[in-house]
Amino acid sequence: MKTDSKCPTNIWHPCTQMKDLEAHPLLEIERGEGVYLIDKNGKRYIDAVSSWWVNLFGHCNPKLTNALKKQADRLEHVIFAGATHQPAEEVAEGLLALTPPELNKIFFADNGSSAVESAMKMSYGYRRNTGNARKNRYAFLTDGYHGETLGCLSVCGETMYADLYGDIMIDNIKVLGPDCFRCPCGKKRGACSADCFGFMEKALRENSEILTAVLIEPLIQCAGGFKMFPPEYLVKLRSLTTELDIHLIFDEIAVGFGRTGTMFALEQAGVCPDMLCLSKGITSGYLPLSAVLTTDEIFYGFYDDYSAGKAFLHSHSYTGNPLACSVAAETLRIFREENVIETNKPKFAHMRKCIEDVFSGHPNVGEIRHTGFVTAVELVRDRNGNVPFDSGLRTGFQIYRKAVEKGALLRNLGDIIYFMPPYVISRDETETLVSIARESVREVLG
Amino acid sequence: MKTDSKCPTNIWHPCTQMKDLEAHPLLEIERGEGVYLIDKNGKRYIDAVSSWWVNLFGHCNPKLTNALKKQADRLEHVIFAGATHQPAEEVAEGLLALTPPELNKIFFADNGSSAVESAMKMSYGYRRNTGNARKNRYAFLTDGYHGETLGCLSVCGETMYADLYGDIMIDNIKVLGPDCFRCPCGKKRGACSADCFGFMEKALRENSEILTAVLIEPLIQCAGGFKMFPPEYLVKLRSLTTELDIHLIFDEIAVGFGRTGTMFALEQAGVCPDMLCLSKGITSGYLPLSAVLTTDEIFYGFYDDYSAGKAFLHSHSYTGNPLACSVAAETLRIFREENVIETNKPKFAHMRKCIEDVFSGHPNVGEIRHTGFVTAVELVRDRNGNVPFDSGLRTGFQIYRKAVEKGALLRNLGDIIYFMPPYVISRDETETLVSIARESVREVLG
Repeated sequence: MKTDSKCPTNIWHPCTQMKDLEAHPLLEIERGEGVYLIDKNGKRYIDAVSSWWVNLFGHCNPKLTNALKKQADRLEHVIFAGATHQPAEEVAEGLLALTPPELNKIFFADNGSSAVESAMKMSYGYRRNTGNARKNRYAFLTDGYHGETLGCLSVCGETMYADLYGDIMIDNIKVLGPDCFRCPCGKKRGACSADCFGFMEKALRENSEILTAVLIEPLIQCAGGFKMFPPEYLVKLRSLTTELDIHLIFDEIAVGFGRTGTMFALEQAGVCPDMLCLSKGITSGYLPLSAVLTTDEIFYGFYDDYSAGKAFLHSHSYTGNPLACSVAAETLRIFREENVIETNKPKFAHMRKCIEDVFSGHPNVGEIRHTGFVTAVELVRDRNGNVPFDSGLRTGFQIYRKAVEKGALLRNLGDIIYFMPPYVISRDETETLVSIARESVREVLG
Repeated sequence: MKTDSKCPTNIWHPCTQMKDLEAHPLLEIERGEGVYLIDKNGKRYIDAVSSWWVNLFGHCNPKLTNALKKQADRLEHVIFAGATHQPAEEVAEGLLALTPPELNKIFFADNGSSAVESAMKMSYGYRRNTGNARKNRYAFLTDGYHGETLGCLSVCGETMYADLYGDIMIDNIKVLGPDCFRCPCGKKRGACSADCFGFMEKALRENSEILTAVLIEPLIQCAGGFKMFPPEYLVKLRSLTTELDIHLIFDEIAVGFGRTGTMFALEQAGVCPDMLCLSKGITSGYLPLSAVLTTDEIFYGFYDDYSAGKAFLHSHSYTGNPLACSVAAETLRIFREENVIETNKPKFAHMRKCIEDVFSGHPNVGEIRHTGFVTAVELVRDRNGNVPFDSGLRTGFQIYRKAVEKGALLRNLGDIIYFMPPYVISRDETETLVSIARESVREVLG
């Protein structure tokens, strides 16, 4: 092995200041089992973040593993131009059946970023093919996150990821988004009519001639700080985008597949976007796969004789990979056969109660917020005025490190700690997890 | 299933004018076995394109399938921030051992596009972190292809993919690249000193103050028309980019892993890039995975105290996926244990001979070109002056359809037909494939 005297590994890890590894070594994970990750010494960690919000039914779930093995014996992969296969057909049929009737076409890609890039290209491509190429800009929300390739970064409202790359991407239109914890309209969570939609309305009306689409993560802006907002915002957004002929792109990459309490977040608003981006939970956390669902209207904007040059060109070598699709098809089967959406409800209700019980009175807890199987606890220096900690203290990171010591992979996002476990978590495991979280907070903050 | 009276499927396929499916139905592939894809009626097709240039050791290769199954029983996935695992370590060690000593760090992503986007961000991020943010543009070659997300498209020289999206991406610097079949300098293939490098030299010298990197597919521009050019071009490019402080990014996504006859194409030029992008064959065609290999110099441009805000942020949920890494590790083991680079040589020599034997005299064959295990046959209307066919005739596409009827997935790229089969192809299978190709050409062109 090539060596390096300074950095303890030659692998450059994502979302990591590698110098941190000098003091905080990587976990060396060897096995997975249900909600547990197990390291090479046999130490077990509750995977409270579902390994970056992807795992639904536990690590090494027997049903999913069997589906994968069966497929590996039949067909591991085939080029998806000119050919199709049963696992892709099954995923397509399953996803289209679970989504609003207007969504009638599905396009596959490999990861969330690629899905968002595809949707962005579809939207503008449709404009160009239908003689409206002036609509070539996108609107997005502050603290929105849609992936980190350069197209995605150009609609990323989370400044930490995007701002450094401003010089190498196009300018789009950033709109002040909802923030119910620190409401820009001075309202209280749950007691408003999505008044903050006014900022969006102004931006869309002023820019409707150049806007092809607006991107939004419905109900929860995850990477941007687990900001949760009411469905009414989406209802207003759908109505206005229809009026102004702006495509609405829902990024349910993090929130789809039951995470918000319904199969898809869009159900809670009762609206249908022009494009719906899915990934993460689509394979229950086994393999990279993503999809964009869209309408016949968009699809037929590209449908013409070959010589017209209107085809939608966006390819990845592993588009529609049969192995990934086989696990996705099994995921949908589990949702049906185990009635997951219903059986999850008492589980996340219990998780919420456990978290409220131990955290609601804590002087550094600014807000505890819940949507479906996601609970975020935002820590503040001072509850009066919700004054944040000095970011240099890395309060959240310290709590994360403590929790790892105690056997839980409970990641922080700044000074927010969040609970987003696999759906198979038991009552006992939930209680253990919350108790580890409480102890970790106690050791750092008292 | 939601239905649609016009289009025969609800799945939007990549790189496809979907209206073509009305006349040319999709293959419904059910199984894979060695070089064969087998449809639901049991009909067998030789996979002459390795399912988009990814398959190395045959479909459902027992060694690779076993490696995948073993890993699926241990650990299907874990978040790759804060954690690592044996399969990723093994792939990292293996790849770094096979590449020049200067490449000492490896960053994982999910697909080729994501690797290229990562490399582009690394290059510019390094400039920004080292006080040189004015270097914020990229140079690329005509007919170069590096993927289809918007960052990749901004360095795509293949106009079919890129030009339509000009309005939604940044402007980079396109340079006339090598074209040995229709040499811009009036030279003959094999009898030049890469004189066409003059165009690149001019562009780089004129723009060196704003250029952070140049991207190139070494030895073969695949998607851009299987243009093959001499290593000397790469030697000159490395020398000049070093002189001008421009990063050199080699995209070996299509040509790596033995395809050009050496493990990596860079070996034939004896040069080392600043970043090397790999994907496709990395998992022998099983699963999406990619990697960027880079130098300690680049890596340490991001290595600092957390508070400095210099970390390289680029994440995909499935970064370093253990299932994909397990197959990649087994791929590297097969290369070692079966001495693949050496055993391939007589195989592709035989393939070349078969193709030369039947095609070299054909009046519509403009050029037959070979690099390692890739042979491309460029068809022309008139060999005198190498006049192309009218593109409306779709000559290559017709040949592709004929070959499919006859049992070979022999895709065209415009009017080029190409042979890029899995390395496990036998002599008999090669002969069958070439004979199908010859018959298909005969039926279309005589």
